[in-house]
Amino acid sequence: MDQAKNQQALVSQIGSVDTQQQWLTEKENDCTDTRIEMDSLGAKEVPAAAYYGVQSIRAQENFPLTGNRVHPQLIRAMGMVKLACTEANQATDSLEPRIAEAIKQACIEFIAGQYQQDMIVEAIQGGAGTSINMNVNEILANRAIEILGGRKGDYGVVSPNTHVNMAQSTNDVVPTAFKVAVLMMHEALISSLVKLHETLQRKEMDFDEIVTIGRTHLQDAIPIRLGQRFGAYAKFVKRDIERIKESMEDLKTVNLGATAVGTGLNADMAYIEKAIEELALITGFDIRLAEDLVDGTQNTDAYVHVSGALRTCALNLSKMCNDLRLMASGPICGLMDIHLPAMQPGSSIMPGKVNPVMPEMMNQICFQVQGNDHAIAMASEAGQFELNVMGPVLFKNLFESMELITNGVDALVEKCIRDLQANEARCTQQVNRSVGLVTALNPHIGYEKSAEIAKEALDSKRSVREVVLEKGILTEAQLDRILQPREMTEPGIAGGRMDH
Amino acid sequence: MDQAKNQQALVSQIGSVDTQQQWLTEKENDCTDTRIEMDSLGAKEVPAAAYYGVQSIRAQENFPLTGNRVHPQLIRAMGMVKLACTEANQATDSLEPRIAEAIKQACIEFIAGQYQQDMIVEAIQGGAGTSINMNVNEILANRAIEILGGRKGDYGVVSPNTHVNMAQSTNDVVPTAFKVAVLMMHEALISSLVKLHETLQRKEMDFDEIVTIGRTHLQDAIPIRLGQRFGAYAKFVKRDIERIKESMEDLKTVNLGATAVGTGLNADMAYIEKAIEELALITGFDIRLAEDLVDGTQNTDAYVHVSGALRTCALNLSKMCNDLRLMASGPICGLMDIHLPAMQPGSSIMPGKVNPVMPEMMNQICFQVQGNDHAIAMASEAGQFELNVMGPVLFKNLFESMELITNGVDALVEKCIRDLQANEARCTQQVNRSVGLVTALNPHIGYEKSAEIAKEALDSKRSVREVVLEKGILTEAQLDRILQPREMTEPGIAGGRMDH
Amino acid sequence: MDQAKNQQALVSQIGSVDTQQQWLTEKENDCTDTRIEMDSLGAKEVPAAAYYGVQSIRAQENFPLTGNRVHPQLIRAMGMVKLACTEANQATDSLEPRIAEAIKQACIEFIAGQYQQDMIVEAIQGGAGTSINMNVNEILANRAIEILGGRKGDYGVVSPNTHVNMAQSTNDVVPTAFKVAVLMMHEALISSLVKLHETLQRKEMDFDEIVTIGRTHLQDAIPIRLGQRFGAYAKFVKRDIERIKESMEDLKTVNLGATAVGTGLNADMAYIEKAIEELALITGFDIRLAEDLVDGTQNTDAYVHVSGALRTCALNLSKMCNDLRLMASGPICGLMDIHLPAMQPGSSIMPGKVNPVMPEMMNQICFQVQGNDHAIAMASEAGQFELNVMGPVLFKNLFESMELITNGVDALVEKCIRDLQANEARCTQQVNRSVGLVTALNPHIGYEKSAEIAKEALDSKRSVREVVLEKGILTEAQLDRILQPREMTEPGIAGGRMDH
Amino acid sequence: MDQAKNQQALVSQIGSVDTQQQWLTEKENDCTDTRIEMDSLGAKEVPAAAYYGVQSIRAQENFPLTGNRVHPQLIRAMGMVKLACTEANQATDSLEPRIAEAIKQACIEFIAGQYQQDMIVEAIQGGAGTSINMNVNEILANRAIEILGGRKGDYGVVSPNTHVNMAQSTNDVVPTAFKVAVLMMHEALISSLVKLHETLQRKEMDFDEIVTIGRTHLQDAIPIRLGQRFGAYAKFVKRDIERIKESMEDLKTVNLGATAVGTGLNADMAYIEKAIEELALITGFDIRLAEDLVDGTQNTDAYVHVSGALRTCALNLSKMCNDLRLMASGPICGLMDIHLPAMQPGSSIMPGKVNPVMPEMMNQICFQVQGNDHAIAMASEAGQFELNVMGPVLFKNLFESMELITNGVDALVEKCIRDLQANEARCTQQVNRSVGLVTALNPHIGYEKSAEIAKEALDSKRSVREVVLEKGILTEAQLDRILQPREMTEPGIAGGRMDH
Repeated sequence: MDQAKNQQALVSQIGSVDTQQQWLTEKENDCTDTRIEMDSLGAKEVPAAAYYGVQSIRAQENFPLTGNRVHPQLIRAMGMVKLACTEANQATDSLEPRIAEAIKQACIEFIAGQYQQDMIVEAIQGGAGTSINMNVNEILANRAIEILGGRKGDYGVVSPNTHVNMAQSTNDVVPTAFKVAVLMMHEALISSLVKLHETLQRKEMDFDEIVTIGRTHLQDAIPIRLGQRFGAYAKFVKRDIERIKESMEDLKTVNLGATAVGTGLNADMAYIEKAIEELALITGFDIRLAEDLVDGTQNTDAYVHVSGALRTCALNLSKMCNDLRLMASGPICGLMDIHLPAMQPGSSIMPGKVNPVMPEMMNQICFQVQGNDHAIAMASEAGQFELNVMGPVLFKNLFESMELITNGVDALVEKCIRDLQANEARCTQQVNRSVGLVTALNPHIGYEKSAEIAKEALDSKRSVREVVLEKGILTEAQLDRILQPREMTEPGIAGGRMDH
Repeated sequence: MDQAKNQQALVSQIGSVDTQQQWLTEKENDCTDTRIEMDSLGAKEVPAAAYYGVQSIRAQENFPLTGNRVHPQLIRAMGMVKLACTEANQATDSLEPRIAEAIKQACIEFIAGQYQQDMIVEAIQGGAGTSINMNVNEILANRAIEILGGRKGDYGVVSPNTHVNMAQSTNDVVPTAFKVAVLMMHEALISSLVKLHETLQRKEMDFDEIVTIGRTHLQDAIPIRLGQRFGAYAKFVKRDIERIKESMEDLKTVNLGATAVGTGLNADMAYIEKAIEELALITGFDIRLAEDLVDGTQNTDAYVHVSGALRTCALNLSKMCNDLRLMASGPICGLMDIHLPAMQPGSSIMPGKVNPVMPEMMNQICFQVQGNDHAIAMASEAGQFELNVMGPVLFKNLFESMELITNGVDALVEKCIRDLQANEARCTQQVNRSVGLVTALNPHIGYEKSAEIAKEALDSKRSVREVVLEKGILTEAQLDRILQPREMTEPGIAGGRMDH
Repeated sequence: MDQAKNQQALVSQIGSVDTQQQWLTEKENDCTDTRIEMDSLGAKEVPAAAYYGVQSIRAQENFPLTGNRVHPQLIRAMGMVKLACTEANQATDSLEPRIAEAIKQACIEFIAGQYQQDMIVEAIQGGAGTSINMNVNEILANRAIEILGGRKGDYGVVSPNTHVNMAQSTNDVVPTAFKVAVLMMHEALISSLVKLHETLQRKEMDFDEIVTIGRTHLQDAIPIRLGQRFGAYAKFVKRDIERIKESMEDLKTVNLGATAVGTGLNADMAYIEKAIEELALITGFDIRLAEDLVDGTQNTDAYVHVSGALRTCALNLSKMCNDLRLMASGPICGLMDIHLPAMQPGSSIMPGKVNPVMPEMMNQICFQVQGNDHAIAMASEAGQFELNVMGPVLFKNLFESMELITNGVDALVEKCIRDLQANEARCTQQVNRSVGLVTALNPHIGYEKSAEIAKEALDSKRSVREVVLEKGILTEAQLDRILQPREMTEPGIAGGRMDH
Repeated sequence: MDQAKNQQALVSQIGSVDTQQQWLTEKENDCTDTRIEMDSLGAKEVPAAAYYGVQSIRAQENFPLTGNRVHPQLIRAMGMVKLACTEANQATDSLEPRIAEAIKQACIEFIAGQYQQDMIVEAIQGGAGTSINMNVNEILANRAIEILGGRKGDYGVVSPNTHVNMAQSTNDVVPTAFKVAVLMMHEALISSLVKLHETLQRKEMDFDEIVTIGRTHLQDAIPIRLGQRFGAYAKFVKRDIERIKESMEDLKTVNLGATAVGTGLNADMAYIEKAIEELALITGFDIRLAEDLVDGTQNTDAYVHVSGALRTCALNLSKMCNDLRLMASGPICGLMDIHLPAMQPGSSIMPGKVNPVMPEMMNQICFQVQGNDHAIAMASEAGQFELNVMGPVLFKNLFESMELITNGVDALVEKCIRDLQANEARCTQQVNRSVGLVTALNPHIGYEKSAEIAKEALDSKRSVREVVLEKGILTEAQLDRILQPREMTEPGIAGGRMDH
């Protein structure tokens, strides 16, 4: 007991690993040098070396949630949007070339990821992304000031609002950047799904001649080829690819130029058209201006539609993974239709155990994607008037869903599906012992008589064949023609139409 | 106190209104005459007059949940599928013409709704719809027996399984009928949404010249025309119509002929092709055979996709209804941008109160549709191997969602949107008093100076115009050019580019 | 082809079974006689025989959704609340005894279900239940008028608002009635769950000596007694009962007397106290007045809490039913640990097939309850200021969840769990062949050596015992002490600590 | 155009910031020195300096999802559980003191966070946490080996499985650690909520005399004191605190000693009791052994219950934040009942705009928590047989929900609620102009006559008082007694019962 008390004393000295605070304080250490910045709410100290400014710090202080920052792809896309807008402002003579060139250089460095550590705002934040936009504006302004030979914080040289954000509002640039980010991420997603589709098609071919027992209600049904089962998985992956691609189309329509409420105040048409053209060039996507900018600013159904395509895909993948885990159950007391590649020892206590960890991972990804989709749906419903201010949570969840499916599918293909093997001997044995074969007799002797045979076979643990012969209902030759499992896996009357 | 006790005594005599049982017992009264039917589990009494049979009764007893029966449109669609299959069985000489003709006549009566009261199974049921299929098979068999001059229950004349269900399985006919039912219901849904779209477009035009205050974050922003706001609603309805229509396309692909596990055992290709052709004729839809019948039997992503389109639509409608309720808030202490038609007295206690009951109804429909969508997603994930046995709960929820949106939108259009009025005087007054007008000064005097003016205007409760003039920043003439709310509702620099 | 066209022609004559409208029109037929009623929106015809009045008709017309009416238990509870309030109004001399007595008699008839067909409003409705309240008020007023010798509609005799609704608002009586309804329904729910708990405990005892293979990750693990598995199910049912009971406690706290916004305007304390006392007497529940009536009127977290308890229960039940379906998989090619009672033929095409329909029903109930819970959560979040106007959709979903679990569990117990049987021979055989037994060797020979044995046993398809003996690692006597499956199902080092 | 092309070229040189891979590769660089480790699947290189081992690397490779690692609190709790188990193994003479002491020292360092960077596995992972457990086991073994003077990887000295994991299984230690982690985190959560409760109570007092217009259906209702509204918020926070606390109780019941399937194989009772006792000492929580270890290993309803309490809390908070945003709407064209503290400039384009960013943050937290709860529910339902393998996703979501509410509420209190101000003048003005005051006349002149007055007041834009006087229905003196807004905010007949 004394020992126990010592223990406790020891542990209590350890102190708490206060992880929530850690990331915040990390930021602040070594910042002995500071500069003072002002905004409409007053002055604030900013680390002298920082590219971000006063508004970024306010946002960091306002939303100290979990340390989960804005997604790198959204950051990158923000740089692209800023580059396009600055180009357009320069082209329409709204921005002095000297300033424009400096901002553009800053944008290119920013897109390359150079200032990622200066993007200090959390993913979940109030203000509909204003803090994302201002964090970017401040970084770009300070970098442009540097380029022009000024000192960080001297916004008289380049202003985050007047120059970097010229003709822009959070409400048009952030949603536009979000769409660009999703479009950039979606290519890897489609490529993962295409790989999955191809791998499943290969399994369909490899297992084309392996007849196994079909199962409905988890009960033995009638024969099916294992390849047919995998072929069915391949089919839905193809549909998922198409649904996801289709859902991406609306994202190419952006509201850049809509400014604050979709009316385009402070953004003239020449600027808008140029900015769209530039953004298409920079991103390589077929970016189009929304037909109705008020609608484009107000509504988020396009995001829900994308999330809907993802969650449908995840549900399908989860169903497939449930099947894989069931088929691979065993090794002695399960269904044992297939063998999955062993990826890691399965138990810290049970020697030799190997678990289907890859499908289990994918099931969990599915649950996460459903949860994310739910958050997205609620956020979408919560829009009011000219803006949906719940964008940040919506972005966070859609990014996570995309990454999880992309990387999860990749891992699933490489580490599970590509090398899974059929247990052919077991499949053959099962199908031959199954009573479902009796179904093939229906067209020949009627459902009611078949039912009697099935019952007797089950009760007496004999085969359908034996029972039929014993009862003299069909001849051996007839049964030979009818009871062919391989033939039963294609449409048709097994044994053909015959006179009895 | 004595009185109170009397009260209690009185009430306790009343007995409980046991509603769950009521519907069950209703069925059974007056059934003094019965016949005996047998299935593989044994014998059971069936009311002599009933068209349903032993398996229907088993299902009724097994699933006594809430009294919520299978949807009438699914019943009707089952009749159509049975008619198509019987036609195909006759055409391929599998079914005697005499029997086929009797079954077909029964089908036609069934489609007309004549035996709806004999469809006694609950919407939620185990067995993946086998009980729906068998309830239909029994009704059709008994009616066909009658037509052929036999007595109900004499399945030697026409068998529910061998004849009515010939070459069919629950696993192909029920999903096929479900798809037909949804396609039938979807026409009314689209027509409701088209009406909504047109009505919103009319509002867009009617309110095109009413400038009001745009709101973001529920805070005053910059001017917008009320017509633009309604135009944005119209736009998403158009997208919803397109998404719903697109989602319906997959439902035209059916697995009829797949039989039990998608392999088509007991259904030859001639039959399958004929059945599909007939079903297309009967329903008037462009019904196609699934490319892969195993996939078509196993997977339910098409249903999730439809539900996804519905829930996206419902989220949009809910957002719009939230706006309507906010805009109509008042009549004295709210926003009062618009007036909704008064549909019913709003309070049992507050005289003269009128509430926005129609948008409130639609908000609740949205929540229901989200919940239904969630049930559908979970049911879809729960498929295993060759079949998703959770079909019944999936059907129930999709039917409810479709009906709620169809009828809810109809009511919303007729009783709320068509006749809602703008409160023009209020809109104009609001926009003129708002400080957001200062935004139009940005391109002329820069964001930072504009911010100072905004602050001073708010603090001193004066207009932006007054403050600018007082400070001598711009002339009256310049302000006249810039501060025009109507002009601010279109893209461009308000007041144009000018030298200051 | 001609025949096909005839077919189509025939079917098109059938006309559509327009079910949505059917229920509405049913109402209206045979109503040649009408009376005229007025409310603040104007005059309307009411069927002369109807007890409901003008406001009920407006509501019926406003919300023509699916024909799903207000739940009978809510109707009954409304009668109880009205009875209590009228008693209190009489006791505080606010209501003339003659009028009070007539209303009370009407209430008692109403509670007995006599006017259920006059409750014509839909479950989902705008107005936060005002239409429910007014439908009840009108029925009671008209019946009271009759009792007093007047003619229906002559509200000068008894007014639905001034008399029946005296000192009440929808916002206090409807939530109060809802809570009473849930409390009434919850008794049957608890009784179903108690029955399930007892039945599972019986299985725990019955199967106490049947050692079977434990499964984790669907992979063979180490021995467990089948009774232990069922005992674990029993335990969570006990927790669910406790959670549901606990969640009901808050429902006994009502806001009766809060009137419109929780301030109690028009309801004095004497009335309030009397009404609460009466309601407790009438319902037999320990009804209490909310400590804070504004809170009691504004917030719906108590409902979410109840729904949360229900959905947790449903998730547990679904997990158990998944296990039941897995254990019963077979009859030849599955796990076959247990046999479920056969409740209905399982297939319209596969003779002799029997499916686990009762667990499948319960899985679907679980999905429905999750969906309902989701709708409830969204409705709860949507409250604004002094009232949550989304009550109706919340009520509908909670009622359905309660009924589904109550009746579903009853059916599951009676038709599945009570009579399910263990497949003892199979269990024993499986456990003896499993490699997981090797785990018991860890304490004796270490994890690493055990892992080698496991691998060799699996690869060579021999038993752990054989491999150990061959390698001479342990003696036969030692293995006899260690490898006892029954002993392995209790804590401890199998074979005890021994010197090797 | 040339410029545009240059642009594009420039950007394309930038290369993609492939963030998913970044974190993985970071790990691997500079690892020129490696050691070789073996497990049952073969050999693998491990960085020589790493404390983790071969199984950790396999897991890292198997689940390369988003870089989101296992939560630090779960890591810390794992250290505590390992410490308790090692203590128990030593106390029961199963582990050599020399080895035990080394492992214990390693545990203490581990709890202090010293090896956090060696915990390389992702939060979402297959294998039910085996990789978490083995990552910990390997770190502790290697550190213990070092302490004993050995070289990392020399598991003959201290084995991750045989020694560190002695008498343990992933299936008991990981869930136990998870519960400890939640209990540790829950203290901060409760403390945040208590602070919120107190702050709301202070607002209740501060605003106790401010009469404002009550609103139902977003329509003007009758007077309420602003303090009453905030008091109602305080009340639900109190209930949320109680519900969360209550939900934590079950987490104190752990299955430590259950080992693989809950039967306790390889863990004798002396060890189990000692381990529980130690864990209680180390954590300071009243840790108890589950009554039924099979149940304790199989079921996750306790987690769903906790998540349920969190989501109910989040829904309440979201409702409150919706109210705050509505009350603070303006500054000119909104409701303007209150002023929220300005936390950051609200717009990058609209000068002077300030948005309710803190409530917006909390709304989004609510949506995230609902989504997380959904993922948790689905994961819980997916348990099979003796284990729920979906633990990891369940842990991740519960941790995030707890952190979000804890830190979000803290921020909300500090930066919004503490300093929000009532707009008293506006409140008073509104309530006096409102027509809802007419409700107080009901008891004096009846609902019907009051309704007429309300209508006339609204139509003629006059006050209720004016209309009543004009019509001579009540005298000025009577109206003076009745129409007192402050008096209307308490139960009672405004003006008392009087003879008219």
